[in-house]
Amino acid sequence: MRKLYYSPGACSLAVHIALEEIGIPFEAIRVAIREGAHQTPDYLALNPHGRVPTLVEDGFVLTEAPAILHYLGHLGGQAQLLDLDDLQALGRTAQLLNFFTSTVHVAFAQLWRSERFASSQDARLEIEQDALETIRRHFDELEELAKAGDWLVGERFSIADPYMLVFYRWGGLVGIDMSQYPAWTAHKDRMLARPSVQRALATEELHID
Amino acid sequence: MRKLYYSPGACSLAVHIALEEIGIPFEAIRVAIREGAHQTPDYLALNPHGRVPTLVEDGFVLTEAPAILHYLGHLGGQAQLLDLDDLQALGRTAQLLNFFTSTVHVAFAQLWRSERFASSQDARLEIEQDALETIRRHFDELEELAKAGDWLVGERFSIADPYMLVFYRWGGLVGIDMSQYPAWTAHKDRMLARPSVQRALATEELHID
Repeated sequence: MRKLYYSPGACSLAVHIALEEIGIPFEAIRVAIREGAHQTPDYLALNPHGRVPTLVEDGFVLTEAPAILHYLGHLGGQAQLLDLDDLQALGRTAQLLNFFTSTVHVAFAQLWRSERFASSQDARLEIEQDALETIRRHFDELEELAKAGDWLVGERFSIADPYMLVFYRWGGLVGIDMSQYPAWTAHKDRMLARPSVQRALATEELHID
Repeated sequence: MRKLYYSPGACSLAVHIALEEIGIPFEAIRVAIREGAHQTPDYLALNPHGRVPTLVEDGFVLTEAPAILHYLGHLGGQAQLLDLDDLQALGRTAQLLNFFTSTVHVAFAQLWRSERFASSQDARLEIEQDALETIRRHFDELEELAKAGDWLVGERFSIADPYMLVFYRWGGLVGIDMSQYPAWTAHKDRMLARPSVQRALATEELHID
């Protein structure tokens, strides 16, 4: 039985949605970062970085959200969350995921995990303040991406779309008025209309407006 | 004609090596970051983030090194830099690339591009100092990864291997004695023995010991 280890609302939500989309059986196991559950010896034995998500299938352990998304994109069969017949679309999807993980997500790490970047209180405060500006600059770009059409790549739902919903929610958490991004808000509404998204949010006990 | 825009020794080197491996014709175009060539209007029109690499094929523009590597992995045909028949190996390869891009590479950005994280001179200095410790911690982990075998995933050369060579070189640049990592050094030597790597280094006018 596949197991997904997630923390509510973390980037693991993107993987959670993808699993619901492709409709293979899996068990969702809560590892709430807020409660420190990602730092227990048991979880660190599974994922030494102490991060979510982790996907486990029998002996096979896979970490890093975009990697699990790529894996599920290939595994997806009928759901086809990655267009394996259109390599340019596949490349574009990988490009968006890499921008999300190495740039946008890192800006949130500056805000929420500033200790990764510096130790002193003064430096950490400055890093957190600058992070908010950086996030706003990235969000302008995400709004442009959302204008591509109903979905981010080639007019079909792909493994890139769920990650956008994660950032949308995080934007609200850090006090950004998300209504200033109409195309992205419409994308969020299309996401929320999907049964897969509704099921993942219900399991994680989350509500996104 | 495919065009690869690279800066000598940047992470674009990984893509450069992969292109040489799969043996399709391409033109390598130098965009030296050191000379500010990545910030010219012409280059920014191609890659608005002003980063390398960029791959251009007729009208198709692809950015972000790991995304181009995934694309080439699928395009690769005979060279098979990505095992499309073994989804677990594919997932593992994607996991390594994501760790490289979102964690290891980001630590070098802290060191070399500290202005991305804070503005004041004091905070930037502290970020740079902490970055070196972070890089050393990541390098211990890369040494462990190199112990997997001749190559990082499943005993065959994949799109994950060239990125390791980039970090090996960067380690030397920032003053780390790389001989303390014997498995990784052996991996570097195996890389340097490949004609593809020799060609890419010659084009970029680089020498790696």
